[in-house]
Amino acid sequence: MKSWRNPHIVSFSDVVVDFRSGRQTPRDFLERCIARVEKSESQLQAFVTLDLDAARKAADASTRRYRDGKPLSPVDGCPVGIKDIMSTRDLPTQMGSPAFKGWQSQQDAACVHALRQGGAIIFGKTVTTEFAVGFSGPTTNPFDVTRTPGGSSSGSAAAVGAGMLPVALGTQTQGSTLRPASYCGAVGFKPTLGALPMAGIHPLSATSDHLGIIGATLADTWCIASQISLRMGSPGYGFLQGAADVPPAAVKPRKLIRLYTRGWGEIDQPAIDAFESAIVALQKAGVEVVGKTDDPRIAAFEDALEKDVDGALDIVAYEMKWPFEEYLARFGDLIGKRIHGLIKRAGEMSPADYRQLLEKRRAIQQQCRQLAADLGADCYVTLASSGPAITGFEFSGSRTFVVYGSWLGFPSFSLPLLESGGLPFGLQLLGLGDRDGDLCATAHWVMQEFTGN
Amino acid sequence: MKSWRNPHIVSFSDVVVDFRSGRQTPRDFLERCIARVEKSESQLQAFVTLDLDAARKAADASTRRYRDGKPLSPVDGCPVGIKDIMSTRDLPTQMGSPAFKGWQSQQDAACVHALRQGGAIIFGKTVTTEFAVGFSGPTTNPFDVTRTPGGSSSGSAAAVGAGMLPVALGTQTQGSTLRPASYCGAVGFKPTLGALPMAGIHPLSATSDHLGIIGATLADTWCIASQISLRMGSPGYGFLQGAADVPPAAVKPRKLIRLYTRGWGEIDQPAIDAFESAIVALQKAGVEVVGKTDDPRIAAFEDALEKDVDGALDIVAYEMKWPFEEYLARFGDLIGKRIHGLIKRAGEMSPADYRQLLEKRRAIQQQCRQLAADLGADCYVTLASSGPAITGFEFSGSRTFVVYGSWLGFPSFSLPLLESGGLPFGLQLLGLGDRDGDLCATAHWVMQEFTGN
Repeated sequence: MKSWRNPHIVSFSDVVVDFRSGRQTPRDFLERCIARVEKSESQLQAFVTLDLDAARKAADASTRRYRDGKPLSPVDGCPVGIKDIMSTRDLPTQMGSPAFKGWQSQQDAACVHALRQGGAIIFGKTVTTEFAVGFSGPTTNPFDVTRTPGGSSSGSAAAVGAGMLPVALGTQTQGSTLRPASYCGAVGFKPTLGALPMAGIHPLSATSDHLGIIGATLADTWCIASQISLRMGSPGYGFLQGAADVPPAAVKPRKLIRLYTRGWGEIDQPAIDAFESAIVALQKAGVEVVGKTDDPRIAAFEDALEKDVDGALDIVAYEMKWPFEEYLARFGDLIGKRIHGLIKRAGEMSPADYRQLLEKRRAIQQQCRQLAADLGADCYVTLASSGPAITGFEFSGSRTFVVYGSWLGFPSFSLPLLESGGLPFGLQLLGLGDRDGDLCATAHWVMQEFTGN
Repeated sequence: MKSWRNPHIVSFSDVVVDFRSGRQTPRDFLERCIARVEKSESQLQAFVTLDLDAARKAADASTRRYRDGKPLSPVDGCPVGIKDIMSTRDLPTQMGSPAFKGWQSQQDAACVHALRQGGAIIFGKTVTTEFAVGFSGPTTNPFDVTRTPGGSSSGSAAAVGAGMLPVALGTQTQGSTLRPASYCGAVGFKPTLGALPMAGIHPLSATSDHLGIIGATLADTWCIASQISLRMGSPGYGFLQGAADVPPAAVKPRKLIRLYTRGWGEIDQPAIDAFESAIVALQKAGVEVVGKTDDPRIAAFEDALEKDVDGALDIVAYEMKWPFEEYLARFGDLIGKRIHGLIKRAGEMSPADYRQLLEKRRAIQQQCRQLAADLGADCYVTLASSGPAITGFEFSGSRTFVVYGSWLGFPSFSLPLLESGGLPFGLQLLGLGDRDGDLCATAHWVMQEFTGN
């Protein structure tokens, strides 16, 4: 079937073949990325901090390693954007907050450390909304400058969607990786909670914060996630299921469970039509797609999701007490209103309230796994956002479609396959906890089916 | 039965009654603590940093709150020592490392924040071994200046054991709370892994690091742990089982499983005699005590413990890669040899090795629970150290007896009841995961039985 294609995209997995053969060097590729930044950054505003000299030095070192036939890893020479809530030993980490203007952590977050050790090029720090939860930054959407790129990983998604970089790191606590990836026409991957290390990244909610990867292609996304996993492990988890230099081979799913959720009420007819066409295409390819009208167990699961999903934000608020209670006392109005509101909300909760929310989350995880097992389904399918990017910058867009996956802590992909009014948005695949590789195999098949590669 | 008593000890739960009645103020009590510090600190060297002016101000504010009948919490006015790997917004956090000399975190760790919010007085930063794992600091043992206080929470245990403070915070990754508590004649409590928040504390191993409490009495220890839990929660855990202003009522255990472990080979006859006397006293009080010679299932469990326990340190080493790989590159020989060795060890492990160690840990946890259930036992009993503090300062003492509890992540107490050659050491109770309150109820009964209160 015909699907939307991002004309800007630059893929690392395509060029790394040239690095190995010597037809192109990491420095050559970096200069292409820099040229693209120089052309569009004044409008896009994806970056907070760039150190192109350092990036060039790193690319030259990588060039020498390929020349000697000794690249450090499959991501050697890959330029990567780093969301500005992640610590970097050389560049400031400013959290999208005036309270952290110029702040230097002096060390690399675990994910940055892993990539640097593998020879990846730390290209620059990308715009984040305030602490990944407050007011928006200046970044615009690569497909329409009057629209938001989505948040909170705004700069990472915009830079990849605009073809400045093949890959950038984001985070997702509620919707912060998949939503901007969807709006910017990039692949977004949020792994199982805990599957990638969060050390050195400013926390919101220890039981909801996920490291996310935004990439030009599924291969780029998976390769970067795998490197982080294989170099660092993730405490208590081991490593990403299926972690390897290339994505798992495409596996055609037998059955997908389609989720509507309350998000369905937020989208307009053209977006509905785009999604329905994709579902029809999957069915034509021989994949069974079942939804709440086909099976009362699915309807019951949708009801259960709606009933308690708002508790996801209460969990975040409660866990934000540290360090945000102290930030409010120390920085006052330098901290945005939304954060003040969340800490107020947390103050109204008791420890027993919090514990109950954790129990509800455990129950919904169990129900989600059980339903897929009962129906013999491979994963869930829905949208990654309520249609394309919205106009304006006050609001970074609805997180409705993606908050379920964050709440569950289960892996999800946004695949840049849909389009409405000339603007991209993503098809979401939502998998089962600890089965990231299985979900990637399904995503691989879907991408092949829709794009031919 | 007659048991050892620490003559120095000052208990907060005793004096807080006076705060409420007005017979004594928090400032009065603080001055008693300061006088003790002034008398003994030159020899003991328990503290890295003190700010007595700030402590006096905080005590005066607490005094006013009691006068107004409005204390902030049950720990209002309690002076607390903070291990110097825990962030404090006002005092430097120096990690026991020359690489962090004068380093300022500018924020409170979650545990410090919780205590400060409850009106506790942040008295000072206590000596830690290098990053809680490397070379020892200058602290001496309160009962013999030629002996180690134990580590890594050296200053916290020495200050409480010497009667300078009623309570101090420590951490335990392998043996760092129970061992120094045992050597210094204080109560040590290491809760279930994750039951108390680790945010803002320098990490070694995300799946082995525990916040620990060292207190003058069981009541002081429990009250401080409960306040931290009830104010902050612990991400993904909720709160400490049995968290409350006072310890759970004493519950006489029906049956205890006695563990020998390889530690038994490390102790001398007087220490063996002291322990055996305690076991006999428990039996006389009507508690059944069973060991490996009584039941082949216990022998099998002891074998299982020995077989894989060394993997506990491999887990720590692997998780230390972040941030210590970077520290070695940045600070070189400013980082001690033991840490260099652990990072080398980590470099020789594959992700698969790490994952296998996690699986072994899960298996031993399951076996430990199952054995207690099968035998109808309340908890395990053993020693908290290989006898009293050893002579010298190069080595902070064997961690053999306590590493099992750290590896399991299950709660444990060191109770200051035993004595050999005039020096204290602890009786260890090791409980089941997530049942910290149940274990405290048993510990409460044991303390009452041995000391009458």
